[in-house]
Amino acid sequence: MDTRVMTELSPTIELAMDLIRRRSVTPKDEDCQTLMIERLSSIGFHVTQLAWGEGDERVVNFWAVRGESGPLLAFAGHTDVVPSGPEDQWHFPPFEPTIYEGMLYGRGAADMKGSLAAMVTACERFVENHPNHKGRIGFLITSDEEGPAKYGTVKVVEWLQAQNETVDWCIVGEPSSTHQAGDVIKNGRRGSLGGWLTVHGVQGHVAYPHLAKNPIHLASPALAELAHEEWDQGNDFFPATSFQISNIQAGTGATNVVPGALNVVFNFRFSTELTEEILKARTEAILDKYNLEYELEWKLSGNPFLTDHGELVDALVGAIKHVTDMDTELSTAGGTSDGRFIAPMGTQVVEMGPINATIHKIDECVSIEDLDNTSAIYEETMVRLLS
Amino acid sequence: MDTRVMTELSPTIELAMDLIRRRSVTPKDEDCQTLMIERLSSIGFHVTQLAWGEGDERVVNFWAVRGESGPLLAFAGHTDVVPSGPEDQWHFPPFEPTIYEGMLYGRGAADMKGSLAAMVTACERFVENHPNHKGRIGFLITSDEEGPAKYGTVKVVEWLQAQNETVDWCIVGEPSSTHQAGDVIKNGRRGSLGGWLTVHGVQGHVAYPHLAKNPIHLASPALAELAHEEWDQGNDFFPATSFQISNIQAGTGATNVVPGALNVVFNFRFSTELTEEILKARTEAILDKYNLEYELEWKLSGNPFLTDHGELVDALVGAIKHVTDMDTELSTAGGTSDGRFIAPMGTQVVEMGPINATIHKIDECVSIEDLDNTSAIYEETMVRLLS
Repeated sequence: MDTRVMTELSPTIELAMDLIRRRSVTPKDEDCQTLMIERLSSIGFHVTQLAWGEGDERVVNFWAVRGESGPLLAFAGHTDVVPSGPEDQWHFPPFEPTIYEGMLYGRGAADMKGSLAAMVTACERFVENHPNHKGRIGFLITSDEEGPAKYGTVKVVEWLQAQNETVDWCIVGEPSSTHQAGDVIKNGRRGSLGGWLTVHGVQGHVAYPHLAKNPIHLASPALAELAHEEWDQGNDFFPATSFQISNIQAGTGATNVVPGALNVVFNFRFSTELTEEILKARTEAILDKYNLEYELEWKLSGNPFLTDHGELVDALVGAIKHVTDMDTELSTAGGTSDGRFIAPMGTQVVEMGPINATIHKIDECVSIEDLDNTSAIYEETMVRLLS
Repeated sequence: MDTRVMTELSPTIELAMDLIRRRSVTPKDEDCQTLMIERLSSIGFHVTQLAWGEGDERVVNFWAVRGESGPLLAFAGHTDVVPSGPEDQWHFPPFEPTIYEGMLYGRGAADMKGSLAAMVTACERFVENHPNHKGRIGFLITSDEEGPAKYGTVKVVEWLQAQNETVDWCIVGEPSSTHQAGDVIKNGRRGSLGGWLTVHGVQGHVAYPHLAKNPIHLASPALAELAHEEWDQGNDFFPATSFQISNIQAGTGATNVVPGALNVVFNFRFSTELTEEILKARTEAILDKYNLEYELEWKLSGNPFLTDHGELVDALVGAIKHVTDMDTELSTAGGTSDGRFIAPMGTQVVEMGPINATIHKIDECVSIEDLDNTSAIYEETMVRLLS
């Protein structure tokens, strides 16, 4: 690599590279947070480190705040990354950050070490220019977003609530963009509700079907109806609620045995038009219509949330226009994020970060121009809300 | 055990016990055939031993014949047994034959070492009384009926055909009876046709269903239709053709991934009203109706066969009446047997043996009275056909 090019990299890119070098495969942090804490402490943040879980499940988090009182704008994010997958399929080693043709390659470049670096350097510039800013700036950082999310943001939020701390506005650094940093921000997320269904039949030999009850045969029309049901039509902010079966299994492998039970795992991504209770009732009504004998366990991963136009959205939309001259799109599409844990505090939550096309994939990468723009957008949002 | 009782056992029961003592778990024979060959050779059978397969797949078989010319009545059977399952769950050790309250316990007692013993002793008595009987008596014995059935009867039949040998009548010693030996004989069997179906979709994240195509959703109405289709109504000899899905699988276990493919294994048990070709065409027409993208592999385990009233059935029905005073029932129900390999030679094939209630189970057993009756029925059938 041309070292002359290296020396011209922005502090955002250099910090992103320092973070990528740390193999913080979830739930490991590998001192990514130490690096962030050093930088934030030196510009006046007060830091509280918060760890939960034992052994391999241990998760480190931190909460940092600058300023004494007034409205609080928090940046939220995670230092953990998903596994690299087969390293030999990467064009560049996943934990040796590499710049090639304007792109920074490495696991976490887009999701979301790049955003973490952009947050830190945005604060450094903002604090330098506005050492006595209004209100407060916070950081809510976890190392358990890509994993079970049990000892991460959800616990930090519990801790904040126990402290009577209130977060007014929160920018989550998840990669929200499609073609260029800032073209899409996520001002809400669908809810996620999972179901684990077991349909019971009676095991038997395929040669004696009258002695067996085939749960696959019994359940298939019900599954067909669930798959084709229109749950809602969405609304201005949300696409229509979707139902997807992710797993189905019955049978021992033997070709002459009618299985005794069928297992089905499914998931709803649902809009603010519906509630957990309505989805459960409608699903069970369909299953009951087919007289199935079944057990059904539910798990709510998150209720839908929405941050409508208001101080945070307007500041962020304005900042994006200021930095990139683009009109950003508000979206609620995509997977869940830790925003689902923060929004219930009454916080306005928006996700804004670089392009998400390569996340969780081989050759994850991010445009260095986009990362610098992301940092500028974060800084300009602070200017609009806190200066 | 009372040794006085032991000394009163019939030669059939004693031979059955000698066979059960040999742990001939499929495809092992453990010299069961040696024992049979010694007995048959000493009453004038000419024996050809036939082995195929290598190593653990090696299968021993034999063909024995007595008489020089004329119509050939063959007894067919297998010396291999299914595994015992957990031996400590048996009331009596599965390979230590035990008589208790008129029942002989042990793995293979009913399926089908008892029948093999009954065949041998029936021949011993018949030959003693009719040393110059008409026609010929044969034995077609394998040690690979409970396993893949690759190097067993199917190969012996090929060998017989290569010798231009013709079997006119064949009694397979499979346990055909329900309440008492001889109450049911099987004068045919349904066909068995297996299908291995893969329905293709497009893998994706459950949060982005518009980018994925869920093969479970696509296939479920087609599976529902296949499960509810009336394939035929059977006929005088066969129950209606049945379709059963034995295995279904899709998904990686991850709850947020729409699987890329669905795998389904199904099986037809079909009557003589339908053919393999018709079943394939009708199945594919249903799949095509739903515009599924799929691959489908078929395997025919056996065509249906039927032995209508005629010399063999009439002789056997008469022999059962003679020995037990029962009117036997002709049936084609139940699983496949090696009869499917023998019938295509043009042979009249009937299965007759003791009660099948305990076969393949813990505490497999057979009534000693039934076994003695089975031997008497075999003998009387020879009297009617060959004396």
